[in-house]
Amino acid sequence: MNYQQQTIQDIEKVREKAPLIHNITNYVVMNSTANALISIGASPVMAHAVEEMEEMVGLASALVINIGTLSEKWIEAMHMAGKAAKKKGIPVILDPVGAGATAFRTNATKSIIQEVKPQVIRGNASEILAIAQAGFTTKGVDSTASAESALDAARDLARSAGAVVSISGKTDYITDGKKVEEISHGHPLMGKVTGTGCMATALTAAFASVNSHYFSASTEAMIVMGIAGEMAGDQAQAPGTFFARFIDALYLINGEEIKKRWTNGQ
Amino acid sequence: MNYQQQTIQDIEKVREKAPLIHNITNYVVMNSTANALISIGASPVMAHAVEEMEEMVGLASALVINIGTLSEKWIEAMHMAGKAAKKKGIPVILDPVGAGATAFRTNATKSIIQEVKPQVIRGNASEILAIAQAGFTTKGVDSTASAESALDAARDLARSAGAVVSISGKTDYITDGKKVEEISHGHPLMGKVTGTGCMATALTAAFASVNSHYFSASTEAMIVMGIAGEMAGDQAQAPGTFFARFIDALYLINGEEIKKRWTNGQ
Amino acid sequence: MNYQQQTIQDIEKVREKAPLIHNITNYVVMNSTANALISIGASPVMAHAVEEMEEMVGLASALVINIGTLSEKWIEAMHMAGKAAKKKGIPVILDPVGAGATAFRTNATKSIIQEVKPQVIRGNASEILAIAQAGFTTKGVDSTASAESALDAARDLARSAGAVVSISGKTDYITDGKKVEEISHGHPLMGKVTGTGCMATALTAAFASVNSHYFSASTEAMIVMGIAGEMAGDQAQAPGTFFARFIDALYLINGEEIKKRWTNGQ
Repeated sequence: MNYQQQTIQDIEKVREKAPLIHNITNYVVMNSTANALISIGASPVMAHAVEEMEEMVGLASALVINIGTLSEKWIEAMHMAGKAAKKKGIPVILDPVGAGATAFRTNATKSIIQEVKPQVIRGNASEILAIAQAGFTTKGVDSTASAESALDAARDLARSAGAVVSISGKTDYITDGKKVEEISHGHPLMGKVTGTGCMATALTAAFASVNSHYFSASTEAMIVMGIAGEMAGDQAQAPGTFFARFIDALYLINGEEIKKRWTNGQ
Repeated sequence: MNYQQQTIQDIEKVREKAPLIHNITNYVVMNSTANALISIGASPVMAHAVEEMEEMVGLASALVINIGTLSEKWIEAMHMAGKAAKKKGIPVILDPVGAGATAFRTNATKSIIQEVKPQVIRGNASEILAIAQAGFTTKGVDSTASAESALDAARDLARSAGAVVSISGKTDYITDGKKVEEISHGHPLMGKVTGTGCMATALTAAFASVNSHYFSASTEAMIVMGIAGEMAGDQAQAPGTFFARFIDALYLINGEEIKKRWTNGQ
Repeated sequence: MNYQQQTIQDIEKVREKAPLIHNITNYVVMNSTANALISIGASPVMAHAVEEMEEMVGLASALVINIGTLSEKWIEAMHMAGKAAKKKGIPVILDPVGAGATAFRTNATKSIIQEVKPQVIRGNASEILAIAQAGFTTKGVDSTASAESALDAARDLARSAGAVVSISGKTDYITDGKKVEEISHGHPLMGKVTGTGCMATALTAAFASVNSHYFSASTEAMIVMGIAGEMAGDQAQAPGTFFARFIDALYLINGEEIKKRWTNGQ
């Protein structure tokens, strides 16, 4: 089965099963992430209290750990939730927002990768490079965040962390350390709305909850993000209305839209 | 006076008085709840620090306690605010988001009901059932969240807690333990936007601040939610644009729209 | 150079440099503030952990301190960030949300003004009056929040705090204690969306990051807010769609729109 068929099929699975996605995510994107998950067909829950971590993870089909607005207390909750998720056998998707910007974020990311061992790490090029520089790759990496250097770092990171690494950008790259998928769907206005990366992470969790081949699930999520972006771009010329149309598109996306907008080489 | 006249009149009262509604609510819906309250004509304030609870409640005309993203510190603030509200004589509206999902939430809900004694408890069917199962009803309740079983639980909960219980769903039910009102207004896309339940809770507080007959105020809030949903549904086909149109509708709703869309039996 | 030319030029500078604006701001407006900053061309970061304050400020071109949803921990972070900003020499913009409503907020505002010495204080009339009443002005102020009495208080506050004071309202006033600018742009629906004041503060930081004459930068920010409001008001009749159009307008605003909508006397 090719990615086109599989993406269409897994969207249907998400809509049928409405998997509960547990998000420990940042304040900025909680609302938009919840809406993105609902629109694609999943059920979001946002919870961060250590007192309920294990029980909440016990109800979930996937866990998102997003370090966008971090504090000590939340790092503790992230570790607890991550361990509960691994114990239960549900996938953990890590979004290392701002890794590299401060040691606090880089170290939190490092400890989560080492101790929780997420199945997927999804970030932008500079975040992936920062993590690699923090000791996860065997060779030095260039700090200029070109897609190519990030891709090398991503491959190394995927191998050393035992995770799929998904890099969003003009072209998205997904790698498991060996294979690489490139997705060229999307729209420039996606970069003008806060939290599109975080939404990509949440959608990755939704697809990972119905497709345990996490390399494929990650690829499908980026395809859906990109095509939804194109659908929204047909309806809006600026970021405010684009965002509303993007949430609409996640709700409206279907086999017909995917086939119509599909580009070669995937 | 019937509900139609009363709803129209109380919308006017909210718009005239612009009552300050103090919300201790979850991070996911803070923005959308604030906008819903402003659009209907009320003045929202979101505050959660124990250091300012009593003083802030002292300025407010109603208090919302929403446990959507809970932590120990916030539970403390909720109790402080609740007691200050009771002392001042303003209504407290409790939204037990996710009660039943974790013991932490169920216990927090239970202790708030017992100690704060909210005038209105507004949740969905499974939350109301979970609270009832936690010991607030005299008979066992079925865990399948059918509207009927929830309604029985709601009646019992209303009696034992001395509160109006308002259940949102395809049909909304409001009960004071004896009387029951059914509201069949609304639109399917309301279930596809995060926080519509939380907005219903906030609107209940707005109406309770101008109408001290809390059974009526709760009914009016659900009528306004439902009709605003219908107005939005005329303008949008998917959740992103629907949400913007829903906020618009709360601002635009008036006697003419209410009369036009009114269904029998209320 | 007049304000029209300067505003157009500084919008271009923001878009060219994409300055990083560090926001310690309230939960309600984090998403909308981030989107407002992106749309005007800046790069937002929201971070509040004391563990990363100095490092994050070290990357930023301006700092926003907004006390909208305050807690003890965050006040500590605000002081740390403020001191780091002063040490680095980047402007600090304070938004004293709700100052006067509770002693907790008034005191937090007072201590931030005294210890951090922000370059700009941007609030509404009643907040500015409350700060003035808390001991920052030499003469008593009337508690009725008329624009005139607030303007007197603002002038005194500007002098005693050594800051530019920017008051938003139907007419906006900006003063450095001597000069006063009046801006009459804007649209009534701006008052019906939560967080427009907070967005004005964030835009003030964006302009202050490219124009170190903070009186001018503050004036430009209010001009841009007002004209974007007018642009949005041409496209929307109610707050939900207005907000989306307002974010659009910040993205679409340019020399042509500014010249077309410019009113005399500025």
